[in-house]
Amino acid sequence: MEDNLGKRLKQELENLNSLGADPSGGLSRLLYSKSWVEAQEYVETRMEEIGMHTFYDEVGNLFGRIEGTSHANEVIMTGSHIDTVANGGSLDGQYGVIAAYLAVQLLKEQCGDPKRSIEVVSLAEEEGSRFPYAFWGSKNLVKTAEASDVKDARDRDGIKFTDAMKESGFDFRKNDRRREDIKAFLEIHIEQGSVLEKEEKQIGVVTGIVGQQRYTITLKGQANHAGTTPMGYRKDAVYAFSKIVSEAIEKAEKEGDPLVLTFGRVDPKPNTVNVVPGEVTFSIDCRHTDKATLKSFTHNLIADIKQTVDDMDMDVEIDHWMDESPVPMDEKIINIIKEAAEEGEYSYKIMPSGAGHDAQIIAPYYPTGLVFVPSIDGISHNPDENTKLVDLVEGVKIFADTLYKLAYEN
Amino acid sequence: MEDNLGKRLKQELENLNSLGADPSGGLSRLLYSKSWVEAQEYVETRMEEIGMHTFYDEVGNLFGRIEGTSHANEVIMTGSHIDTVANGGSLDGQYGVIAAYLAVQLLKEQCGDPKRSIEVVSLAEEEGSRFPYAFWGSKNLVKTAEASDVKDARDRDGIKFTDAMKESGFDFRKNDRRREDIKAFLEIHIEQGSVLEKEEKQIGVVTGIVGQQRYTITLKGQANHAGTTPMGYRKDAVYAFSKIVSEAIEKAEKEGDPLVLTFGRVDPKPNTVNVVPGEVTFSIDCRHTDKATLKSFTHNLIADIKQTVDDMDMDVEIDHWMDESPVPMDEKIINIIKEAAEEGEYSYKIMPSGAGHDAQIIAPYYPTGLVFVPSIDGISHNPDENTKLVDLVEGVKIFADTLYKLAYEN
Repeated sequence: MEDNLGKRLKQELENLNSLGADPSGGLSRLLYSKSWVEAQEYVETRMEEIGMHTFYDEVGNLFGRIEGTSHANEVIMTGSHIDTVANGGSLDGQYGVIAAYLAVQLLKEQCGDPKRSIEVVSLAEEEGSRFPYAFWGSKNLVKTAEASDVKDARDRDGIKFTDAMKESGFDFRKNDRRREDIKAFLEIHIEQGSVLEKEEKQIGVVTGIVGQQRYTITLKGQANHAGTTPMGYRKDAVYAFSKIVSEAIEKAEKEGDPLVLTFGRVDPKPNTVNVVPGEVTFSIDCRHTDKATLKSFTHNLIADIKQTVDDMDMDVEIDHWMDESPVPMDEKIINIIKEAAEEGEYSYKIMPSGAGHDAQIIAPYYPTGLVFVPSIDGISHNPDENTKLVDLVEGVKIFADTLYKLAYEN
Repeated sequence: MEDNLGKRLKQELENLNSLGADPSGGLSRLLYSKSWVEAQEYVETRMEEIGMHTFYDEVGNLFGRIEGTSHANEVIMTGSHIDTVANGGSLDGQYGVIAAYLAVQLLKEQCGDPKRSIEVVSLAEEEGSRFPYAFWGSKNLVKTAEASDVKDARDRDGIKFTDAMKESGFDFRKNDRRREDIKAFLEIHIEQGSVLEKEEKQIGVVTGIVGQQRYTITLKGQANHAGTTPMGYRKDAVYAFSKIVSEAIEKAEKEGDPLVLTFGRVDPKPNTVNVVPGEVTFSIDCRHTDKATLKSFTHNLIADIKQTVDDMDMDVEIDHWMDESPVPMDEKIINIIKEAAEEGEYSYKIMPSGAGHDAQIIAPYYPTGLVFVPSIDGISHNPDENTKLVDLVEGVKIFADTLYKLAYEN
């Protein structure tokens, strides 16, 4: 079957892409929608064809299980999410589900049944695209999602979370007992960045998911007539903004990878050609895999902003609305993936994940690993999201090799 | 009457402010509207009470004339505009009309009739607030406005310029013969800036109206995921913008007054917290009284922008959509105003005008002078536009003194 892997992978993608294809472009497969139900049912059928025993949990996470021959009560779990963003691509999420069951199929054909049990999971939801809540699938797997988090949530059409869930045949989970049989969790995902492509690596071995700090900053200067106000009498909020950004990005570059710093949103007031801007509201998004570095960098950045504002006799409002800690992947699993890559002579890069993934929800509870395959031009959350077929195939292979080490070896 | 000047000035403002008072705030007295007709009629009545002979030109500029006793065919003209912006203040424009006829009244009472004829003009339009055309009044006085400029223009309600004009009893002018009897034009206006207030001067003696260069610049980098794109792989258009602005404003400050440089409009794309901004469109507004300095400063600025964009491997689109030359005021008239200020012991400042005024349209054809009175906090084009009554009164006095020198002396 290995020779056929590319063909099979292509077929799986084609079959799933027909479920949730959006007339306005790409895939829109939102939680508890008709196409979402159909996609889970398709995956369920495929799992069964491969010889897995399938079952859903209460909220709709789908599991396909192969019993281990000698350590059936030790479970190696692998998978990703089946939902997409609106007008999303065909790889973010579902590639990780397909890769998991194709890898298991490959292993079963080549090596028979595993020593430890393997469960492939097609997680219900990760994107937060239909309702304002993300990681519904993985957070239910680790029992941290609460019914109260979503019971008032409605989608854009006003449909209640609870109603959508019940209509598709699911419900809130009945108990909070966390499974103790899961010995490892493994996810494969597209990079959604262009590092692997630029550095011509086949595989990314992820060390951890970055922590994030987000702020909304409002600089308050004074709006004035652009013609009648001499430079010396101005409190130009766009000038203050430009000083802050140019200095901060220089410092971020000096700090080096994996720190990233983005000023993505800039809203000046009144935003008119002939008025000195009196106010600018802007966003800060700063990420790093090391919590202490992230904290100290953003702490200094905020101090610099206050200093600049002070020097220019302006005021500032600071809203620190996101403070997420980095989530390291499991050292042992990182090493197993590296070994598999080296043995298979895959080119790989040890790297952080700058985006969020189910793995970060699961990692605090079970030893977790995350593997990346390259993204063409780094494009994601977009109908143009793509990865070369050869890279997708290599991803499945290394994934199978890693699963072998976890589930077949002693 | 001089003792009563404050009282009289206040009364004139109150009377005119009732014509065009906008329920949503301030004055909205747009060209050829009912309140505009009423305001011109009010001014006409006042001119007649003062003993002037009144007449309109074809487009609706209103003149009040006092015959000179010895040089009747030499006209000293003075005035400003009667229209306002929407929700404007009560001084921008009409103060210059009121000050002109109160100054003439003062002179008539104290000194009798002038040697040269004096004409007070209440110009039809300056702001461009109803139709997309500014300086309709002064441009008809100097015969540079063309019917073809406005004949397709419509206001926000779809009313055609021509229909509005004809309905209020006016029409396009019949001939292009420019008057040769006008020997000087004098305008008084609020500063619309805060320089006089900050420097505690009563009077601004304007040397010229600044030239303006305006550009729309689009920096084209690359939009990328804020988490998965390392700093070294970014083409961050907001970073490029911030470097351009911080360096340019430093250079503008080094260049010194009267150069002003404003980046008033900033529109990044996609303007989202978690995307590296791929594009920024921004405005440049640069002004100076010296044409050569203005040209060389903006030339260097554009070269710097191209260099920055080049260094960062980005692209740029440059739209240079305004190139207006500075308009110097008449040297002799500047000196006469200065003399009047010194003789009257008024504190004054020799300064440019950073905003546009009727004087700039008239100056190329007739020796022209412009006098400023302070604006509280520099606020203008706003219902809060204001000037201390004592400053308005001093303005009328120095204006009368200047008119005396022009119309009463040999």
